[in-house]
Amino acid sequence: MPRSIFDFADGGAEEEYTLQRNERAFEELELLPQPLRGAAMRDQSVTLFGKRLSMPVVIGPTGLSGLFWPDGECCTARAAAAAGTAFCLSHGSVCTLEKLAGATAAPKWMQVFIYTDKGFTRELVQRAASAGYDALVLTVDNQLLGNRERDKRNGFSIPPRLNASTLAGMASKTGWLWRMRKELRHITFGNYVKAGETARISELAGRMASLLDPSMSWSDVEAVRKLWPGPLILKGLLSPQEAATAVKLGIDGIVVSNHGGRQLDGAPATLEALPPIVDVVAGNAAVLLDGGVRRGADVVKALALGAKACLIGRPQLWGLAVSGEAGVAHVLDLYRREIDRVMGLCGISSIAEIGRDTLFHKASRSAP
Amino acid sequence: MPRSIFDFADGGAEEEYTLQRNERAFEELELLPQPLRGAAMRDQSVTLFGKRLSMPVVIGPTGLSGLFWPDGECCTARAAAAAGTAFCLSHGSVCTLEKLAGATAAPKWMQVFIYTDKGFTRELVQRAASAGYDALVLTVDNQLLGNRERDKRNGFSIPPRLNASTLAGMASKTGWLWRMRKELRHITFGNYVKAGETARISELAGRMASLLDPSMSWSDVEAVRKLWPGPLILKGLLSPQEAATAVKLGIDGIVVSNHGGRQLDGAPATLEALPPIVDVVAGNAAVLLDGGVRRGADVVKALALGAKACLIGRPQLWGLAVSGEAGVAHVLDLYRREIDRVMGLCGISSIAEIGRDTLFHKASRSAP
Amino acid sequence: MPRSIFDFADGGAEEEYTLQRNERAFEELELLPQPLRGAAMRDQSVTLFGKRLSMPVVIGPTGLSGLFWPDGECCTARAAAAAGTAFCLSHGSVCTLEKLAGATAAPKWMQVFIYTDKGFTRELVQRAASAGYDALVLTVDNQLLGNRERDKRNGFSIPPRLNASTLAGMASKTGWLWRMRKELRHITFGNYVKAGETARISELAGRMASLLDPSMSWSDVEAVRKLWPGPLILKGLLSPQEAATAVKLGIDGIVVSNHGGRQLDGAPATLEALPPIVDVVAGNAAVLLDGGVRRGADVVKALALGAKACLIGRPQLWGLAVSGEAGVAHVLDLYRREIDRVMGLCGISSIAEIGRDTLFHKASRSAP
Amino acid sequence: MPRSIFDFADGGAEEEYTLQRNERAFEELELLPQPLRGAAMRDQSVTLFGKRLSMPVVIGPTGLSGLFWPDGECCTARAAAAAGTAFCLSHGSVCTLEKLAGATAAPKWMQVFIYTDKGFTRELVQRAASAGYDALVLTVDNQLLGNRERDKRNGFSIPPRLNASTLAGMASKTGWLWRMRKELRHITFGNYVKAGETARISELAGRMASLLDPSMSWSDVEAVRKLWPGPLILKGLLSPQEAATAVKLGIDGIVVSNHGGRQLDGAPATLEALPPIVDVVAGNAAVLLDGGVRRGADVVKALALGAKACLIGRPQLWGLAVSGEAGVAHVLDLYRREIDRVMGLCGISSIAEIGRDTLFHKASRSAP
Repeated sequence: MPRSIFDFADGGAEEEYTLQRNERAFEELELLPQPLRGAAMRDQSVTLFGKRLSMPVVIGPTGLSGLFWPDGECCTARAAAAAGTAFCLSHGSVCTLEKLAGATAAPKWMQVFIYTDKGFTRELVQRAASAGYDALVLTVDNQLLGNRERDKRNGFSIPPRLNASTLAGMASKTGWLWRMRKELRHITFGNYVKAGETARISELAGRMASLLDPSMSWSDVEAVRKLWPGPLILKGLLSPQEAATAVKLGIDGIVVSNHGGRQLDGAPATLEALPPIVDVVAGNAAVLLDGGVRRGADVVKALALGAKACLIGRPQLWGLAVSGEAGVAHVLDLYRREIDRVMGLCGISSIAEIGRDTLFHKASRSAP
Repeated sequence: MPRSIFDFADGGAEEEYTLQRNERAFEELELLPQPLRGAAMRDQSVTLFGKRLSMPVVIGPTGLSGLFWPDGECCTARAAAAAGTAFCLSHGSVCTLEKLAGATAAPKWMQVFIYTDKGFTRELVQRAASAGYDALVLTVDNQLLGNRERDKRNGFSIPPRLNASTLAGMASKTGWLWRMRKELRHITFGNYVKAGETARISELAGRMASLLDPSMSWSDVEAVRKLWPGPLILKGLLSPQEAATAVKLGIDGIVVSNHGGRQLDGAPATLEALPPIVDVVAGNAAVLLDGGVRRGADVVKALALGAKACLIGRPQLWGLAVSGEAGVAHVLDLYRREIDRVMGLCGISSIAEIGRDTLFHKASRSAP
Repeated sequence: MPRSIFDFADGGAEEEYTLQRNERAFEELELLPQPLRGAAMRDQSVTLFGKRLSMPVVIGPTGLSGLFWPDGECCTARAAAAAGTAFCLSHGSVCTLEKLAGATAAPKWMQVFIYTDKGFTRELVQRAASAGYDALVLTVDNQLLGNRERDKRNGFSIPPRLNASTLAGMASKTGWLWRMRKELRHITFGNYVKAGETARISELAGRMASLLDPSMSWSDVEAVRKLWPGPLILKGLLSPQEAATAVKLGIDGIVVSNHGGRQLDGAPATLEALPPIVDVVAGNAAVLLDGGVRRGADVVKALALGAKACLIGRPQLWGLAVSGEAGVAHVLDLYRREIDRVMGLCGISSIAEIGRDTLFHKASRSAP
Repeated sequence: MPRSIFDFADGGAEEEYTLQRNERAFEELELLPQPLRGAAMRDQSVTLFGKRLSMPVVIGPTGLSGLFWPDGECCTARAAAAAGTAFCLSHGSVCTLEKLAGATAAPKWMQVFIYTDKGFTRELVQRAASAGYDALVLTVDNQLLGNRERDKRNGFSIPPRLNASTLAGMASKTGWLWRMRKELRHITFGNYVKAGETARISELAGRMASLLDPSMSWSDVEAVRKLWPGPLILKGLLSPQEAATAVKLGIDGIVVSNHGGRQLDGAPATLEALPPIVDVVAGNAAVLLDGGVRRGADVVKALALGAKACLIGRPQLWGLAVSGEAGVAHVLDLYRREIDRVMGLCGISSIAEIGRDTLFHKASRSAP
């Protein structure tokens, strides 16, 4: 895989403090094993927005997955279906939302943004409805692009800045080049190509960037709420106040997210932002979380603090880059087995049993 | 020693956070020297389950010690006997519990698990009683194997996965190979071989793993309590609630343990989990601790927070691997001399004098 | 650039703890994104001492900028003017304050010290008035030179100690030597040369060091206050008590500063010293800050804790050293764009909206 | 200098946690510059046990200084005299206390221990009195030798264990060997050689180690108090309770010390142990401190927390090893100039002005 694509997925904004903080917050929280509670049989399935998922891990939306493996989005969605969990398509996918919908029987969520052209927002929502998507994920923390300096250094911008160094970097990855030989000729943002168009990614990029409405506000959220009667999820909240407003507007779910540390460097770790949001939401919407979820134990920790499920972003891309659908399946299987082991070691039989007493409370330490 | 065996003893689960945390917790706790209290003569002996031990350090159960030195378990037990302390045999020992019992006059403890076949549990407990073991150690935190990724990488699984790399790793350790030339032909889990069997380790491994009862619960503990009238120790508790239940069921001892960071990565340091357990047990059982006890000062710190003694796991294996019985004797001697020196520098004459005032209380710092 | 000049700008006093602490304090403070507040249009202009600046970042006074680029002070001031912000000339500039005044239309501030010769203080203040400077910056934390061990090691003292090693270091920087070929013949402290003098820097250095009055006290501040009717800014306060006195004496502005970690190693981070000073000043003077301001996000954090604007010191020198005026312009542009992006991601339309609720309050975390 | 001698001075006990902690405690405490308080003239002299010292830094007792430079103890004492401060001779000095007394006009302190042979204690105290020593320093934290593993590794024990490696290490230091060519023939512990004896260090070592009384207690302190009417200083206390007892027995001074991290690894940093001791002593004895005092700023921090002066140990040995008396003089001069600069930057004119408000109080931070 060319370095520029690796960095696109691996990197964060500026100093990558938030990126590191996401993971450190999980590291610092401690689980309390309670092996004698007895949990021979463990059931990690959860019901989310009316669908039963086999595990509390959902594939989050990641743009340009099609650069990691031919037909990357469909591969990923098929792996999610096989694993019995949900898949969320990125608005910036290579394939179209209609093609993806036909490729998987899994619960599928569609990511949308608020566009300057309100007609386009409406159109995209209606396409998602027609294609049978189960939930709509309105991402609100990316209207303005974060300062991802690795991407700038690599010329991985929209449109891409190619120079001798980045071209040479690509050329040396012969395995990736051979695998992607067909795709590279027509990689594009599928959802933004009008029927019959053959525009390539570099030509579309400018148009796409200008699509997003920088003056997005709560009235736009209300508008989408009216357009879409099904489960509506707001992705990218860290503020309890904004979470409270979302609940008031009838939002069904919230993803506590800092966009994987890729937007505002200096934003808090999602695990630290989670508890006040859980408190304010008070059960009136499903609170999900992403950012730094690298292990099954991390999922259990997020659930112990009140999340209903976690989204993952980078992990499935690494699986996809290594071996396509099988790689994503392997990644999901690792999470499932790790969650199962943690539940067993903590004496937890079902997701409903996970709570604050699953954690070791430092406050109760009586050391000097 | 082949890397795979080194890693088997040295490693922990997943990111090895708990492994590191065990040691860091000791590092962060501070001792208060009080040289003028006067402690020319120091007595570090303790009475544990009715036996007088010359020091508050006991050899904890470690599986497959026989891979570190020929007849490793007996060597270790003899060193413990010579040092005047107790030895706990692992259920996963290479030699049989009967053979070990004949090899040492030291107080000896036998580790057991809860097996699916309750008859086998009963049988093992009765064998321990017949062989004259002084105490039974029921390990409860390992019914489900931790995610030890070093072992996975090394193919050190049950059964072992041998490949060119691991075989080459072994072949290069000519000293170890020569020393173990006889053992390697018939290394097995001694306690699991029926009389007359000649089964080898790889064949037994599957059987052994399937022996452990994943639905272990308090009723199993009660059953063992009925089978074994002598001192019964629960090993692997970190939760005060579970410690309280153990006391109610008449357990004689508790080992606060996270299995050396080898089971649930993310579990708290044992030294941090100790005080709330000491509080809840309130003297109704002996509280022991293992995990990260690398120095005599660590033993004194654990005792200052309420432990009666510490178990060690890795240190004696390193001693064993270097020079057999003499190596273990040297390790125990280091602990004894370090404990003695710490007691002297803190003005402590006997174990009974160790308490909270042996520690420097940060809370009393009046710095700004 | 010769190592000695790089270190002169890059280094701090002694162990450079304060230097590191400045940056770490920013790293540890977290911002709270609130994307749905809606901030399509962002205005980062501020009014400071009656002048409208296009951004809350001002060029702070840095001695010997003329060593970084030919005519370095004028280049920097022109870049500030083009960017619409203020420039503060160092008393230790290479060019004279009169020459600088003619080179820029930007708001310009002049740095002065308290001199043993009160007549010289008066003279310098009057020259600043005559030349049309907008504000006077009285630096109070440098009467005694900090212990900058890098400079000592490099012989970068006043007068310079040249030896084979430092001369060789200079000689190897051919680009810098060629660029500075004219300047090197007559580099001097412009403001300290009397008309017609041709004294060189090494000859002037001793005189300059002895100029500063080591017995500076509040009465000197009062005297300057009387001499200068315009905005008077005290630079180098960290103590709330001293800030309170400054306000009582009618000072218009305070720069919370530890001289970039170059004076007292062990002084607190400026970001940590800021809040108590903001409290005590209570709006009766403009509180500014410098030290460790490396990103637009840092500026926003300082403003969230009550600063009106930040001064930068090292960043513009690096820009200057790379490409003169264009380099400084680029540095200011980076700050502007980063501030704009942070405001957008936090849903902030104007500087007045930045406040305590722009920060993520750890206190409100309800994690265990 | 041979590695074994370097390590003897540089090293600490076991993991060297306490050694590092000593320095880190100073690093973490922050000073508050107050430049406008006005301190043109600074006086850092202090009165200690009735003698005026030119600075609050005293040369602490370090054994075997004579291994670092020919006649090392006298060189050091002469440098202290020239600097106007006090010198404390180690009981384990190479030269005799009588010879040292004749070599310097500085205030001189003599270190003693509690010996098994009470007659020897009495004899040493009387010799100190006869030789005109000004104060007696009774070291109480070294009756039992700490576990200095660097020394063990280097064979730097009493008696020394010489092997090919350590001998080779010595032989390669030709400068040191040449300089010490005469001393090496008869280096000994001067204070322990009876008149006319020519015993060498290795022969005396066993005798010396066995001299110390492991059952030292408060009654021994009382006995010395009766023997010595002059200033009596207890060195090596970290416990407020023991400090309180010392005051009750009429001790004149206390050195808060962990023996430079060379005795009990795990002991608290002296700077953290200082405040509770200052509180309990309540002005009834002079509280001094050693351990980690590497800079003038460290001295000021210790004084701000209530110490009257600091002792140094390693720093003067490095000075001594580099250039004998001149090296020690240079080290003292560095401290003096650093203390002076810190006082100037903090606006402090005399030692009496140093107090809690010289520190930046983190508690008063109002950041979130």
